[in-house]
Amino acid sequence: MPINSMISSGRVQGTNVYNPDGDKLGTIDHLIINKFSGQVRYAVMEFGGFLGIGSDRYPIPWRLLTYDKGLGGYVVPLSTPKLEGAPRYSKDAAPAYDEAYGAAVNGYYGV
Amino acid sequence: MPINSMISSGRVQGTNVYNPDGDKLGTIDHLIINKFSGQVRYAVMEFGGFLGIGSDRYPIPWRLLTYDKGLGGYVVPLSTPKLEGAPRYSKDAAPAYDEAYGAAVNGYYGV
Repeated sequence: MPINSMISSGRVQGTNVYNPDGDKLGTIDHLIINKFSGQVRYAVMEFGGFLGIGSDRYPIPWRLLTYDKGLGGYVVPLSTPKLEGAPRYSKDAAPAYDEAYGAAVNGYYGV
Repeated sequence: MPINSMISSGRVQGTNVYNPDGDKLGTIDHLIINKFSGQVRYAVMEFGGFLGIGSDRYPIPWRLLTYDKGLGGYVVPLSTPKLEGAPRYSKDAAPAYDEAYGAAVNGYYGV
């Protein structure tokens, strides 16, 4: 039976994210989608206790995520220092995700 | 100030859907996303009392939806008879969204 390539937006919440060594970094809290094209632009991650930063949210450009069938989650080619310095915001203070913010996030990750 | 083109997957729930005359048909319940590409493939709609079919869910191919800034929601070029005969399922019995199901939905809508 082929592995299903479709996922409900409701099920995306809580999908695990791993580093290239297969260590779990955290989970996807929600997605940021271009409402015109329907393309996911950012996965907004929650790292839990991993970086000791509680409930902050980290937008990761979608193109950095690779779905790993074996792990059943996404792998990001990011080191801990890179994540520690990454753009983030408080759970209750999400930015507007306008062009300036998107450019800042993309710039940090070099995409 | 430019209108923001990004939307959170969490906010998609409840976004209104209209017919070309501007009549509200229902709302988007959730999205079905290709987990590899990050492209939204289907908007799963809930028509409320419009067609008298309670809580059934209707997958609509994403390409049929056009975001209308003025309405603040999506417009679909679908007639009531077309929707009345459309693929649907009970809220609690979602299909697998495998290739066969996707082909059936796309075939019904001719996309």
